Amino acid sequence: MPVVTIRMASGRTLEQKRILAAEITAAITRTLGVDPEQVFVFFEEHDKENIAQAGRLFSES
Amino acid sequence: MPVVTIRMASGRTLEQKRILAAEITAAITRTLGVDPEQVFVFFEEHDKENIAQAGRLFSES
Amino acid sequence: MPVVTIRMASGRTLEQKRILAAEITAAITRTLGVDPEQVFVFFEEHDKENIAQAGRLFSES
Amino acid sequence: MPVVTIRMASGRTLEQKRILAAEITAAITRTLGVDPEQVFVFFEEHDKENIAQAGRLFSES
Amino acid sequence: MPVVTIRMASGRTLEQKRILAAEITAAITRTLGVDPEQVFVFFEEHDKENIAQAGRLFSES
Amino acid sequence: MPVVTIRMASGRTLEQKRILAAEITAAITRTLGVDPEQVFVFFEEHDKENIAQAGRLFSES
Repeated sequence: MPVVTIRMASGRTLEQKRILAAEITAAITRTLGVDPEQVFVFFEEHDKENIAQAGRLFSES
Repeated sequence: MPVVTIRMASGRTLEQKRILAAEITAAITRTLGVDPEQVFVFFEEHDKENIAQAGRLFSES
Repeated sequence: MPVVTIRMASGRTLEQKRILAAEITAAITRTLGVDPEQVFVFFEEHDKENIAQAGRLFSES
Repeated sequence: MPVVTIRMASGRTLEQKRILAAEITAAITRTLGVDPEQVFVFFEEHDKENIAQAGRLFSES
Repeated sequence: MPVVTIRMASGRTLEQKRILAAEITAAITRTLGVDPEQVFVFFEEHDKENIAQAGRLFSES
Repeated sequence: MPVVTIRMASGRTLEQKRILAAEITAAITRTLGVDPEQVFVFFEEHDKENIAQAGRLFSES
């Protein structure tokens, strides 16, 4: 705990995930004073046909 | 905001997602009076072996 | 199944939730051809200090 | 209702999911006194590159 | 990891949560062979006006 | 999009949320190259009786 979920479109690189996992965990550890071992980050990737904004699928806008 | 998540079994068509994204966004815009650009819809698809009801996997009932 | 979650700021009325529950369930039943008894809708309300866009808390923008 | 989500690393067997779906549904039915038909369980599987603990991706620790 | 979320109507007792946390963690530890210290359970409670089935709010059915 | 959810125990200050919202949005904007206006952060607070680790409620460990 805390558990962080980042919901985003598919297609990001391993390097982007590596950087985000490290930076977000550092921000939470610094700000909330928790043990880094207790911080979990999940990347929840969605294909663009499974995301919509303003009623239009991302794969079609 | 608002963010809508529709959790459902895999296998729906692009057309079904297109219709649902448009109709749900319209219902929210009309009822809550928010800007459609601020309404996000996510389709979260699960294989039938990853869903259970009454203790039985959907892939086996 | 399907399970719909609507994540939104707190403060909406019972009537708005009543309308949205009915309209969204109807859209899903019509579009996916599922039994309405199998459609669950959850309203997940968040105080404005617990939501941020562009790095600013809703309660302060 | 209730709706249970088990978020875990990918790679578990069908048999493990079968056992967990049955045992968790039984625990909830027994403890909360609800109808098993109203209990849904979702297995949310994540690849190890999409999970991090202490700032490190599971696929790299 | 794994992270379990139990979404249910508000109003359950501390004793029910105590029993469910212990039984579900034991089922996961036994079945997936993971360290109990790595198993997190969250109870996500919703008021009945924030849950709907078949288009009707729980608080009105 | 992306939508970030931070699930944590209740009791954090407004200032901690302000700092986290800003730092996490900046990390995502920098790393994924997205428009900050498209980044949403939600703080999902749970009372300690609604969180368990290793089968024990946080409120009792």
